[in-house]
Amino acid sequence: MDILIKDVTIGNIVTDVLIEGNKIKTIGFVDNNVVHERHIIDGSSMALLPAFYNLHCHAAMCLLRGFCEDLPLMPWLRNIWDKEAELKGEDIYDGTRLAILEMIKSGTVFFADMYWFHEDILRAVENMGIRANIGVTFMDSLGEKKIQNNFSFLNEYSQYDNDLVSFSPAPHAIYTCSGELYRRCCQNALDNNLYLQTHLSETITEVEDCKKLHSGLTPVEYLHSLGVLNNKTIAAHCVHITENDAEILAGRGVIAVHNPCSNMKLSSGVMNFPLMKEKGVKIALGTDGCSSNNNLDMTEEMKLASLLSKVRWNSENSITAKEVFEMATSKGAEFCGVNAGKIREGMLADCILVNLNNERMTPSWDIISNIVYGADSSCIDTVICNGKILMENHYVEGEEEIIAKAKAFVK
Amino acid sequence: MDILIKDVTIGNIVTDVLIEGNKIKTIGFVDNNVVHERHIIDGSSMALLPAFYNLHCHAAMCLLRGFCEDLPLMPWLRNIWDKEAELKGEDIYDGTRLAILEMIKSGTVFFADMYWFHEDILRAVENMGIRANIGVTFMDSLGEKKIQNNFSFLNEYSQYDNDLVSFSPAPHAIYTCSGELYRRCCQNALDNNLYLQTHLSETITEVEDCKKLHSGLTPVEYLHSLGVLNNKTIAAHCVHITENDAEILAGRGVIAVHNPCSNMKLSSGVMNFPLMKEKGVKIALGTDGCSSNNNLDMTEEMKLASLLSKVRWNSENSITAKEVFEMATSKGAEFCGVNAGKIREGMLADCILVNLNNERMTPSWDIISNIVYGADSSCIDTVICNGKILMENHYVEGEEEIIAKAKAFVK
Repeated sequence: MDILIKDVTIGNIVTDVLIEGNKIKTIGFVDNNVVHERHIIDGSSMALLPAFYNLHCHAAMCLLRGFCEDLPLMPWLRNIWDKEAELKGEDIYDGTRLAILEMIKSGTVFFADMYWFHEDILRAVENMGIRANIGVTFMDSLGEKKIQNNFSFLNEYSQYDNDLVSFSPAPHAIYTCSGELYRRCCQNALDNNLYLQTHLSETITEVEDCKKLHSGLTPVEYLHSLGVLNNKTIAAHCVHITENDAEILAGRGVIAVHNPCSNMKLSSGVMNFPLMKEKGVKIALGTDGCSSNNNLDMTEEMKLASLLSKVRWNSENSITAKEVFEMATSKGAEFCGVNAGKIREGMLADCILVNLNNERMTPSWDIISNIVYGADSSCIDTVICNGKILMENHYVEGEEEIIAKAKAFVK
Repeated sequence: MDILIKDVTIGNIVTDVLIEGNKIKTIGFVDNNVVHERHIIDGSSMALLPAFYNLHCHAAMCLLRGFCEDLPLMPWLRNIWDKEAELKGEDIYDGTRLAILEMIKSGTVFFADMYWFHEDILRAVENMGIRANIGVTFMDSLGEKKIQNNFSFLNEYSQYDNDLVSFSPAPHAIYTCSGELYRRCCQNALDNNLYLQTHLSETITEVEDCKKLHSGLTPVEYLHSLGVLNNKTIAAHCVHITENDAEILAGRGVIAVHNPCSNMKLSSGVMNFPLMKEKGVKIALGTDGCSSNNNLDMTEEMKLASLLSKVRWNSENSITAKEVFEMATSKGAEFCGVNAGKIREGMLADCILVNLNNERMTPSWDIISNIVYGADSSCIDTVICNGKILMENHYVEGEEEIIAKAKAFVK
């Protein structure tokens, strides 16, 4: 059904917005004198903003939110891995639905995911009606048979008949995947016209080990030497980046995903945003998984990105509110090839209605500043993805059942 | 009216809690077979936790939320000061009510405030029913007459007949107050048995200027040399602290207030929490004012404190969830002499009910981790201060009017 939002605030104006099918059809006064039925939303106390694009997460890890906190990295990882080994496909379905529920409630309509049981993730994504790029995770330790199965799945699903969903080979990281496996993943992505997801330069240890193993090459230089970096590579973290690394990333058009919350929680370090920006690297934003965050809230991630950069690089305007808002919306959408991320006629209707009567959005000197620095999920009233309402009045149809299922995971 | 919370989660148990008058009377099964009326809350999907204590803010600055963002410090300050100069007593009343509304909605029942128009702040505090220590701000630039008036006010109101409210002289900072003014404020505090609030060691510039002016003394050493530091000194920020500073703060029992969000946003630096902890400094948590935050949400502040310390001091457990939760609750209450901050029989009933069915509190591996790292204000259902309900079902009586008033401030 078409959606008519009456008297809504967009920037400095108050107007109507008509969403027809999956697109923003009209921004301007819309006469509602039509015969067919429209869903009408009173936008008079709302601002219409683009929805958020979360370019890196491990959605189903929501099931492990709060499991084993504040331990040093290795004992923490061992605990997480042991628990992950218990997860079954149905758990992944429940966990991914919980994650998507949380994302919708905080205004996100797209996520790039990297986890196991991609078929169950797909079921969850289609059940919830959100956009996703589903990474099919590769590691050498999977063994050749599973690796082959993954490639077959990607070949088969590269033409999958759902505009909201795409897939990508996701070689986990340079310390879990051989150069050969990276090359095969890259070839599969090229053959099928897919994105490729990976973790890159997340920790100092990763960088130092890489230099030892690969004749002094940094992780970025190493992947570049393999010929696997291009403008469809989504590289999560990129914390420890040299000038040369930044030039390679920019030159190859790699999408670097900043995950400030995770980088802080795991004390991985701070992305050198000023350097990346100076070199022209494409930078989007992601939450990472719940074990290192512990939520999937892009409003929080925007604030953290901006604040962390200000204090680390000693500049009050190192990442401005406007800049980080664009990273989380128009840049994320553009980098992933989705014609959305702005409130503009003809673009896909991926948008949120923010309650201007929420205390945290008051007063309204600057709506973008308020959403970045002041807001939390309680400010987000309505979420529309591809022209469909996923949340209205901060309520998602069926949320009680999703939460009950996820709760049951803790016996 | 007494409050009976049935079947509520406290730690690992599910039980009833009876609040009589302003105290937690009973934790355990409570037979509701009584003649007098009780307000009964179904706690079956809730956890009962202590409420938050915000030990440093400038509440009414909520009116300037989002005003002039991402500018370098000096032009930013000039803009803020110009706008502040326009504020009248009634604006302060409206702005402080907005701030208190926001604090209640995110689970806070006490704030230490430092601003102008203390009589209007008092009106707002009493209107909203929250606890506060209201700082009466001093600067040399006020002139002797206003300084005298402030001292007279403090003498008169030191015995003020409202258990929820106390006052403190608040010499703004060493760069706005002479040593003599600090001494007079300290004497007033001692005479009237009051706390004293001040900003301390917030920026490198403050430290360097202090050393130049005062024979190489750091701001902490300088105030110590004036004899004005004691266990009722609330010192906001304490970002740039030497070993000797930390020993002085610990030795004098000074309450250091960590404001991570503000320190990040203004790129002031990062508190050396490991050093402060090692030396035994008392550390509480505060949000600072909205211009440098831009909200007053202690759940966010807890997360930021923990994450910032982890990444800065390169340790995944530099500030644990449990530790920062105590800073925001029991420590804050204890330092301010309020017999609250824990869910315990006989203690004052300052508590919150957290919705365990919120997606961000799911699953329940660890409720404290969830509230620190996962939650936002949408998880907080009910707030009780001094045995009175300030919020239920995430709704504060009269919130629409408070927001409308604050909105009107932006013409």
